[in-house]
Amino acid sequence: MGNEGKITPWEVEGKVNYGEIVKEFGLKEINEEILEKIKSFTGDLHVLLRRKYFFAHRDLDVVLNEAKTNGFFLYTGRGPSGPMHIGHLIPFMFTKWLQDKFKVNVYIELTDDEKFLEPKRKLSLEETRKWAYENILDIIAVGFDENKTFIFQDTEYIRNMYPLAIKIAKKINFSTVKAVFGFTNETNIGLIFFPALEIVPTFFEDKICLIPAGIDQDPFWRLQRDVADALGKRKSAQIHSKFLPPLTGIEGKMSASKPETSIYLTDDEKTVREKIYKHAFSGGQPTIELHRKLGGNPDIDVSFQWLKTLFEEDDNKLKKIEEDYRSGRLLTGELKDILIEKLVKFLQEHQRRREEAKEKVKDFKYDGKLAKEMWEKVFE
Amino acid sequence: MGNEGKITPWEVEGKVNYGEIVKEFGLKEINEEILEKIKSFTGDLHVLLRRKYFFAHRDLDVVLNEAKTNGFFLYTGRGPSGPMHIGHLIPFMFTKWLQDKFKVNVYIELTDDEKFLEPKRKLSLEETRKWAYENILDIIAVGFDENKTFIFQDTEYIRNMYPLAIKIAKKINFSTVKAVFGFTNETNIGLIFFPALEIVPTFFEDKICLIPAGIDQDPFWRLQRDVADALGKRKSAQIHSKFLPPLTGIEGKMSASKPETSIYLTDDEKTVREKIYKHAFSGGQPTIELHRKLGGNPDIDVSFQWLKTLFEEDDNKLKKIEEDYRSGRLLTGELKDILIEKLVKFLQEHQRRREEAKEKVKDFKYDGKLAKEMWEKVFE
Repeated sequence: MGNEGKITPWEVEGKVNYGEIVKEFGLKEINEEILEKIKSFTGDLHVLLRRKYFFAHRDLDVVLNEAKTNGFFLYTGRGPSGPMHIGHLIPFMFTKWLQDKFKVNVYIELTDDEKFLEPKRKLSLEETRKWAYENILDIIAVGFDENKTFIFQDTEYIRNMYPLAIKIAKKINFSTVKAVFGFTNETNIGLIFFPALEIVPTFFEDKICLIPAGIDQDPFWRLQRDVADALGKRKSAQIHSKFLPPLTGIEGKMSASKPETSIYLTDDEKTVREKIYKHAFSGGQPTIELHRKLGGNPDIDVSFQWLKTLFEEDDNKLKKIEEDYRSGRLLTGELKDILIEKLVKFLQEHQRRREEAKEKVKDFKYDGKLAKEMWEKVFE
Repeated sequence: MGNEGKITPWEVEGKVNYGEIVKEFGLKEINEEILEKIKSFTGDLHVLLRRKYFFAHRDLDVVLNEAKTNGFFLYTGRGPSGPMHIGHLIPFMFTKWLQDKFKVNVYIELTDDEKFLEPKRKLSLEETRKWAYENILDIIAVGFDENKTFIFQDTEYIRNMYPLAIKIAKKINFSTVKAVFGFTNETNIGLIFFPALEIVPTFFEDKICLIPAGIDQDPFWRLQRDVADALGKRKSAQIHSKFLPPLTGIEGKMSASKPETSIYLTDDEKTVREKIYKHAFSGGQPTIELHRKLGGNPDIDVSFQWLKTLFEEDDNKLKKIEEDYRSGRLLTGELKDILIEKLVKFLQEHQRRREEAKEKVKDFKYDGKLAKEMWEKVFE
């Protein structure tokens, strides 16, 4: 970070230096020690952990220490501003794995208010609610336990959260949100209040809350920890993911508003093929001859990075792909074909589950065991 | 106003110059012309109008022009920060009279959130809710039509208001609330958002909204009119009351936090008598001899001003009291006795109705015809 970029929940600019972030945000790295500790509970490690796509944490060790005694709960969310792409799905996939391994409750907030209030989005509330529905289908498709998962939209669940939200809000003044989020005098009073509503779910249970999310949400959690102290409540723990690099280059974050940078979860085979061929930034050489001679650079090749992050779970296969590419044996087109095959298979399965999810929306939002309990509670 | 004082919803300081306010806030005076127009609908004029305690308005002429065609609705409210005193009741008494005369719906907002969020109050949310209940009893005791009146608390009715509240909030930035309400960087983000929730009820019906309230609420309505334009909705109309002078002197506003300045609606006869004798600021002379000789000054005598505002409706009787006091025939003690008799009678009747109100709370909040309809609506 430093001079190189800028990260807030509403803006990610330039190259992201994850090492610097760990220092600047006061995080701990995901290292072998904590991975061993996780493994002592889970038996194995999710590829996103092994490959350190989830790269940093705060108090994950506390969560693990309490896992067998007090327990913990999971909280994550989605700002429904448009269709979800592959990068958006990753924290949910990881959260689902944690739910399976630890058998804990998951709370998923759809911030339909926030995405309406963000001025640059130019979305109506009707639009953000439509996207909330669409996004919920993708989230359900990940495979959460419908009796241990509550999916809620701010504009619907507000009655149950507002009393606690104003208790949180009373502890946060304009100076603070200015410093933490970069708000200005031109920021609207709805967005100014909103952070209180993102913090409420961290107090849904008396146990410690673990939040798997993108690093850009960290300002909320730093604020949450200050507020928790002031309210005599528990500070939340976080496990942070990197950004999946956009197709168009390894810097920055995929943007749903720039379709060429992302693979949407609803993209069909033809679209995936076209996007990868046309836009996936390549670490290869300009000609086949040169490539055979000089080899490619997997470190900047987006197709390789996507395989590494998620789509090639087998460490040996991945290593071979890397070596072949670096040596020039594997051409860029061939590397892209490997990714396309994996991606298409992944998306076809996702889209099948997404269809089935339409029947399950009401369970996750209203009728499942946890959802039913949550509608009977008012948080104060 | 100008240099003489300061008026916001959260602060009223020094002497209030009502003539200046009319100019500064862009209001119109309640004059004989508009009184005649009101009378053409109502047949008679409420004492608070005749005596111009309701002294200014904005678009009341528009309301009257539409009264027979589109109709209108009434909206007022109460910040439940403590027990209600006589001054608090006045806008409700007048609103009730308007409801009787025009047969229109009345919406009454209890801002339990606002009074919790106001830092100087040091009230817990539990306390503001307790006061909301107590205040609702006083409001119901005024005699509203339980099928045409909806009384609601922000923390309870928020689900139905929040979508519209964020649409309003999106049109208001920090600069604006800073300028309108005097908010600073130290203001908490809950109070910063709150004005959106005071504006929502002005859009509860498609008709024009008329707000009878104290002049200190005017900043909300000026903001409402800007927002209404931006949202393509109707600007609200207002009719503004002065402040009933505190017992302790004719300047400023009664304060529930200074018990000696107010008569509470729950005060008994003995307390009323003591407060008036001890604290009611007198326009009389220091000795009976001097008083007989020089006469009293009713213009600065709080007991006389209270009789004039509300408690002596008969113009002839009031005139005689004024003349007798000014001439010295009527002593301060005798003047106070006149007020005490009126006040005690008023309060005994109010307290009887307040007891009965306990049975009616659920009708005004949930089960009455209008309340029932309102719980089925979500404002967007």
